[in-house]
Amino acid sequence: MRTDGRNENELRQVHIETGYVKHPEGSVLITVGETKVICNASIEDRVPPFMRGQGKGWVTAEYAMLPRATEQRNIRESSKGKVTGRTMEIQRLIGRSLRAVVDLEQFGERTLWVDCDVIQADGGTRTASITGAFVAMVLAFGKLVKQGTIKKLPIKDFLAATSVGVLPTGEEILDLCYEEDSKAQVDMNVVMTGNGEFVELQGTGEEATFSYPQLQKMIELAQGGIGELFDQQKEAIGEWSAHIDRNRNQ
Amino acid sequence: MRTDGRNENELRQVHIETGYVKHPEGSVLITVGETKVICNASIEDRVPPFMRGQGKGWVTAEYAMLPRATEQRNIRESSKGKVTGRTMEIQRLIGRSLRAVVDLEQFGERTLWVDCDVIQADGGTRTASITGAFVAMVLAFGKLVKQGTIKKLPIKDFLAATSVGVLPTGEEILDLCYEEDSKAQVDMNVVMTGNGEFVELQGTGEEATFSYPQLQKMIELAQGGIGELFDQQKEAIGEWSAHIDRNRNQ
Amino acid sequence: MRTDGRNENELRQVHIETGYVKHPEGSVLITVGETKVICNASIEDRVPPFMRGQGKGWVTAEYAMLPRATEQRNIRESSKGKVTGRTMEIQRLIGRSLRAVVDLEQFGERTLWVDCDVIQADGGTRTASITGAFVAMVLAFGKLVKQGTIKKLPIKDFLAATSVGVLPTGEEILDLCYEEDSKAQVDMNVVMTGNGEFVELQGTGEEATFSYPQLQKMIELAQGGIGELFDQQKEAIGEWSAHIDRNRNQ
Amino acid sequence: MRTDGRNENELRQVHIETGYVKHPEGSVLITVGETKVICNASIEDRVPPFMRGQGKGWVTAEYAMLPRATEQRNIRESSKGKVTGRTMEIQRLIGRSLRAVVDLEQFGERTLWVDCDVIQADGGTRTASITGAFVAMVLAFGKLVKQGTIKKLPIKDFLAATSVGVLPTGEEILDLCYEEDSKAQVDMNVVMTGNGEFVELQGTGEEATFSYPQLQKMIELAQGGIGELFDQQKEAIGEWSAHIDRNRNQ
Amino acid sequence: MRTDGRNENELRQVHIETGYVKHPEGSVLITVGETKVICNASIEDRVPPFMRGQGKGWVTAEYAMLPRATEQRNIRESSKGKVTGRTMEIQRLIGRSLRAVVDLEQFGERTLWVDCDVIQADGGTRTASITGAFVAMVLAFGKLVKQGTIKKLPIKDFLAATSVGVLPTGEEILDLCYEEDSKAQVDMNVVMTGNGEFVELQGTGEEATFSYPQLQKMIELAQGGIGELFDQQKEAIGEWSAHIDRNRNQ
Amino acid sequence: MRTDGRNENELRQVHIETGYVKHPEGSVLITVGETKVICNASIEDRVPPFMRGQGKGWVTAEYAMLPRATEQRNIRESSKGKVTGRTMEIQRLIGRSLRAVVDLEQFGERTLWVDCDVIQADGGTRTASITGAFVAMVLAFGKLVKQGTIKKLPIKDFLAATSVGVLPTGEEILDLCYEEDSKAQVDMNVVMTGNGEFVELQGTGEEATFSYPQLQKMIELAQGGIGELFDQQKEAIGEWSAHIDRNRNQ
Repeated sequence: MRTDGRNENELRQVHIETGYVKHPEGSVLITVGETKVICNASIEDRVPPFMRGQGKGWVTAEYAMLPRATEQRNIRESSKGKVTGRTMEIQRLIGRSLRAVVDLEQFGERTLWVDCDVIQADGGTRTASITGAFVAMVLAFGKLVKQGTIKKLPIKDFLAATSVGVLPTGEEILDLCYEEDSKAQVDMNVVMTGNGEFVELQGTGEEATFSYPQLQKMIELAQGGIGELFDQQKEAIGEWSAHIDRNRNQ
Repeated sequence: MRTDGRNENELRQVHIETGYVKHPEGSVLITVGETKVICNASIEDRVPPFMRGQGKGWVTAEYAMLPRATEQRNIRESSKGKVTGRTMEIQRLIGRSLRAVVDLEQFGERTLWVDCDVIQADGGTRTASITGAFVAMVLAFGKLVKQGTIKKLPIKDFLAATSVGVLPTGEEILDLCYEEDSKAQVDMNVVMTGNGEFVELQGTGEEATFSYPQLQKMIELAQGGIGELFDQQKEAIGEWSAHIDRNRNQ
Repeated sequence: MRTDGRNENELRQVHIETGYVKHPEGSVLITVGETKVICNASIEDRVPPFMRGQGKGWVTAEYAMLPRATEQRNIRESSKGKVTGRTMEIQRLIGRSLRAVVDLEQFGERTLWVDCDVIQADGGTRTASITGAFVAMVLAFGKLVKQGTIKKLPIKDFLAATSVGVLPTGEEILDLCYEEDSKAQVDMNVVMTGNGEFVELQGTGEEATFSYPQLQKMIELAQGGIGELFDQQKEAIGEWSAHIDRNRNQ
Repeated sequence: MRTDGRNENELRQVHIETGYVKHPEGSVLITVGETKVICNASIEDRVPPFMRGQGKGWVTAEYAMLPRATEQRNIRESSKGKVTGRTMEIQRLIGRSLRAVVDLEQFGERTLWVDCDVIQADGGTRTASITGAFVAMVLAFGKLVKQGTIKKLPIKDFLAATSVGVLPTGEEILDLCYEEDSKAQVDMNVVMTGNGEFVELQGTGEEATFSYPQLQKMIELAQGGIGELFDQQKEAIGEWSAHIDRNRNQ
Repeated sequence: MRTDGRNENELRQVHIETGYVKHPEGSVLITVGETKVICNASIEDRVPPFMRGQGKGWVTAEYAMLPRATEQRNIRESSKGKVTGRTMEIQRLIGRSLRAVVDLEQFGERTLWVDCDVIQADGGTRTASITGAFVAMVLAFGKLVKQGTIKKLPIKDFLAATSVGVLPTGEEILDLCYEEDSKAQVDMNVVMTGNGEFVELQGTGEEATFSYPQLQKMIELAQGGIGELFDQQKEAIGEWSAHIDRNRNQ
Repeated sequence: MRTDGRNENELRQVHIETGYVKHPEGSVLITVGETKVICNASIEDRVPPFMRGQGKGWVTAEYAMLPRATEQRNIRESSKGKVTGRTMEIQRLIGRSLRAVVDLEQFGERTLWVDCDVIQADGGTRTASITGAFVAMVLAFGKLVKQGTIKKLPIKDFLAATSVGVLPTGEEILDLCYEEDSKAQVDMNVVMTGNGEFVELQGTGEEATFSYPQLQKMIELAQGGIGELFDQQKEAIGEWSAHIDRNRNQ
C-alpha cells in the first residue's frame, strides 16, 4: 500500500489550467498531486548564434524552483551566482524532449522558450514540467497559426512524461510523490510520444541497482500513466488536438 | 481620466489570498489589479553572521520576477550569474520596511525570510510585495506563537505600501499601473505604518522634477490608499489583527 | 548640540577643487567635512545598446570606495567578484539625478560617465558624490563646447544634494557626519535643482518611522543647505554658471 | 558496415594503463579507440558538509576536457568562469555510478575524488570515464587497504559503461565513435554491475524517438560490450579482482 | 634626448606625502612625475587560513586603478566581475617585495594589507606603488610600536623600486614615463634593498630581446635611481629611519 | 650535493614527444625529470578584437594543471569560477615569450593558441611549458607552410627556458625540482633565444634577496642549460630547424 493510498499503477490527481499568466504566448499551471509548476511559453523572433542562417527555429527550456517550493528554503540560484548541476540537467532534458516532437523547419528563425517555474514541489517536478511545457508550447505555436505568422502547427506528435521507481520493498510504482521518491532505490523518468515511442529514458539507481525484469515492469507502468496524461493534454489544448492528429498521419 | 477609468485617488482591485503554497510558514498571493506576487515567509533557526550572539532576530527579503511576468521575456538573473541593481534595491527596500514594524528582540536568534516572486507584473510590484510580505510575515510569526516557540507576536504595527505619481498632464494619481508608470514624470513609493507614520518615502523624477505642492498632494493620495490596504490586510490575518492592535497600545 | 558643535541647520565645511586629475574631461575633488570624493567625468563617443539610433546622449555614474576610506578596511568589490546592492543603489541614484538636469538631445550619441571614488568617508558620500559629479559633468560638457563639438552646454539647471535626519533626541539636523548617521533614526537624502524642485527624495527609517511634521522640517533644512552648495558649485564652474542661468531662463 | 569496419556488436580497442601519473592514490589512462581519458583517484581525509558526523565516506567525480581534446578548440571552463551544463551532467553521472558499487560505510569519513580528464576525444568519453574511474578507485582503495587504514576493499561489485545507439539506417550499434555519434538518431549510455544489473540507463533521441524493440536490442548489445570491459578491468586491477569477487559473494 | 628633457639616468620628480587619508594606520600619496598612487596600510588582527597557528604575521597587497587614471577610461574590475591578469601579477609582485624586508616573526598573527590605488597613471605605477607601499608599511608598523603592541619595528631593510628600459634607439634609460614605456623594446622592473641586494628583477622584451651588456647597463641605472628613492623614503618616515638602520646592523 | 645527485649545472632528463594528441595542429608531451606537460598548438582563423584589421597575427597561451598533478589535489579553477593570479601570470609569461620569436606579420589575421596542461608537476612547470610550447608552435606553423597557407615559417629564432636558483647553502643551481624549489631562497626563470639574448628574466627572492654576483652566476648556469634544451628542440622539430636557421641569418 502506498503512503497516499494509491495503487502501484495510479497517477496522482492531474490538472492543467491554461491562460494562467497573461503575458506569455502560452501559459499553463500544471498540478500533479501537490506538485505545481507554471509553464510559460514565449516566442522570440531570432535563434541562438549556433542556429543562425539555417532558416530553422529552436526550442529551449529553463527550469527553476521558488526558494520555498520545498520543505526547506533553498538559496536562489541568482544569489549563488550560478545555476546548479541539477537545474542544468533538468532544463537540458526538457528542451531535448520538446524538440523531439517539433518540426524545427516549420516556424522560421524563431526561438520558443518554455520557462518551467516550480511553485510547489512534491516529487516529479521535471516530468510535470515536460507534460505542462508541451501544452504551453502548443498554445504558443497555436497563437502564431491564428495570427497567420506560420501556416500550420509545427508539432509532430503528443509528448508527456512521468516517473516510475522501485520501492525498498521491491515493488515497482508509478508517479512517485516526494516521500516515495526519497526512499526509492531506483528512479526512472520516461518521456514518450503519442505513438508510443520513447524520447528519453533515464533510470538511476542511487546507491542501488535494478534488473532487466524490473526495467520492463517500470516501462509498462510508465506507458499506462503517460496514456492518461495525453488525455489531459488533449482536453487542455482543445482544437489543436486535431491538428496534431493530422500531422501524425502525414 | 485614467486609462482604466479609475479616479485619481482610486486603488486597483486588491485581493490577498493566504495559504497559497503549502510549505512556507506564511504564504500569500497578493493581487493588485493585474500585478500578482507570491509572498512566502520562512523561519530559519539562525541569524546572519553580523547579528550573531546578540540574542536578536533578523528580517530580510528577496525579490524576483518570473522571466515572463512582463510583456517581454527577461533573462533570468541566475543565467546572468548576478542579481541586477534594480532587484537589489527592491529587496533592500522590502527588508528595511518590514524591520521597521518588527521587534527584533522578541523572537530569538532566528531569521524571517520573505520571498516575493512576481508571477505577473503590471506596475507597483515593489509596493504590492511589501503589502503582501507583511501579511506573510504576520502569519509566519503567528505560527511560532501558536507552537509556543515565542510568547507574543513581535509586530509593533501594520505596514503597507503604494505608489503615487505625476502624469505628463501634471495630474497626481494613486497606484500606477504599468502603462501609467511608464509615462509618468514622477514616481513615488510610500511605505507607512498603521499609526500614519512614514517608513520609506522614495520619490524619483526620471528626467523630470517635482515641486513641494506636488509632493504634498502625492502624500495625501498615498495616505488614503494605504488606509484601504490596511483593511485588506486585517481581513487576511484575522485573529492576529487584535494582537497587533494590542502591541500598538503598549 | 551636535558632536562637532554645528547648529542643526549648518553644513560642514565644503570645498570643491577642480582639475584634480589630469586625464578626465572634468575632474573634481569634493570635500564635505572629512568626506572626500574624486568625481571624474569622461566623454565616450557612443551610447549603450538600449539608446542606440535615437540621436540622443546618455549620462551614467559609477561609485566606489577605496578599501580604507572607512574606519575598518572593506574587501574590494573586484575581489568579491561582484558589486554590492548598496553600491548599485547609489550609482543608480547618482545617474538618475544627473539626467534630471541634462538635455540628452543636445550632445549627440555620446555617453558621459561620472566616476565617483570615495577616498575618505565620514557620512554623506552619496550626496557629496552628486554635488561633485554635477561640477565634473559641467566641466566635461564645457570642454566639448569649447572644442566646438557641441553648440551649447546641455545643462538645464543646477543640481546638488545633501542629507538630513532625525537624531534619537527627536531633533532634525542637516548634513549628517558618520557618527550622527550611525545613530540617527531617520536618514533622508534630498536632491534638488536650482529652481527649488525635487529630483529625488529618499527618506528611510531603519527600525524607526517619521511623521509628516518631521518630514516638513527635514525638507526645510535640506533646502537651506542645498542653497549654499549651489554657491560653491557656481564658484567652481566659473564662466559656465552664466550658461546654465541662460538655459534656465529659456 | 560501420565507418571503421567494426561489426555492430564490436567494441573499439580498449587499453587500461595503471600508474599513469605518480601523485594520485590511483591513476589510470584509459584508451577506447581514439578516446583517451586520464582517471586519477584521490583520497581526502574529510567529507563534504552534508555528510559530516555520519561516520560514512563519500565518492564524487569531476570531468573535464583539455581545450584541444576535440577537433575544434574549446574555451576552457575556467576562462568562462563557469562549468557548463554538459560537464555537470557528466560528473554527476560518474559520481552516482561509482557510488552504486561502493560501501560508503566501510572507509570512514573520507572522500574519494575521481578526476576524469579527457586528453583526446572521439566519442564515448563519459562511458570511458566511468570504466576507467572504477579502476582508479579500486587502486586507491587498495592502497588504503595495504596501508592498513581500512580493513577491506569497500567495493561491492564491478562497474563499467558503454554507449549504444541507432544509426539513421535503423541499425543498432555498440560503442559509437564520434562520427557515428554525431549522426546517430538515438544515443544510450548504459552503466552495469558485474552481476548484470543496471546502475544507469540514459537513452536520448535528439530530434528522434525509439521503440521498445530498439531499446531491447540496444540493451543486449550493451550487455555484451560491458562483459568485455569487465575482463579488461580485472586485468588492470590484478589481485584486487579476487577481493571484489569475495565481496560479491557475501 | 628624452621626451621630457631628462638625462638617461635621471628620475622624474618624486614626492611622498604622508598622512594623506585619515583612517589607515599608514597612508601615503606618492607622486613620481605625473604618476600618483595612494598607498594605504591597514593592520588586521588575524592572518589568512594558510598561515594560522604559526605565530607569524603576513604582508599582502592589493592594486587598482581608478577608471580614469589613464588617458582612456577603463572598465572597473568590479563591473567586469573579475580581477585582470595584469592586476594580479602586480599585486603579487608588491606583496612579495614587501615581505622580503619584513620579519614576519615579529608582529604576531596579524596581517598588514597595503592598498595601492593609482589615481593618475603616467608609467611606472607598479614601482611607484612598491616605493610608496614601503613607507605606508613602516608608518603602520611604527604605530603598533608606539602603541606598545609590538616591541620593535619588524623591518629589516629599506625597499624601493624603479623601472629601466631600452628605447628603440638602443639607449638604456631610467624611470620610463608612459610615452617612453609604450615605445620601449625592453622594460625591466627592479626592486632593491638598502644594502644593494635584489629582491625582484623582471625584465621583459615584448616582441624584442636584450643582450647581457644591456642587462648590465640597465641594472646600473636602476641602482642609481633606487639610491635616490631611499633618500626620499628616509625623509618621509623620519624617526623610523634610525630603527631600520639599527635592524640592518644586527 | 643535490637531492637527486645532479651537479649544480646539470639539467634533469628531458624528453620531447611530438604528435602526442591527434587533433591539434602541433602537439607535444614534454618531460623534464618528473614534470610532464602537454603542449597543444591550435590555429584559429581570426585574431582577438584589439588586433583586428591590422593584417597581423597573434600568439597567445593558456596554462593549467590537472587537479592531481601535484602531491595534494587542487580545486579546479573551473569549479572556483575563476583563474588564479599564479595561472594568469604564467600564461601571460608564456604568451609574451613566444611572441618574441614570432614574426606576427607573416601569418595573416590568425591566432596561434598554445595550451600547456601540466599532467604531473615536479618543479619548473612554467619553463618546461615554454620549451615545449615552442616546439608545438613550430609544428603548427610548419603544417600551415606544408598546406601552402603561408609561405614561410614565421619563426625568427629558437626559444627555450629554464629555472635557476640559490639554495639555503648559498649554492647556485640549474633546473630546480620541486623539493629544491620549495626550499630555495631565490628562484629565477630565464627565457632565451638561440642567439643568446634574453626574452624574460624573472628573479624573485621570496623572503630573501640576492646579490649581483649571484645574479651573474645564475645567468651563466641558465645559459648552459638552455643551450642543451635547444639541441632537444632541434631534434623534435626535425626539418624545420633549418628553416629557423635560415630566418636567423636573414
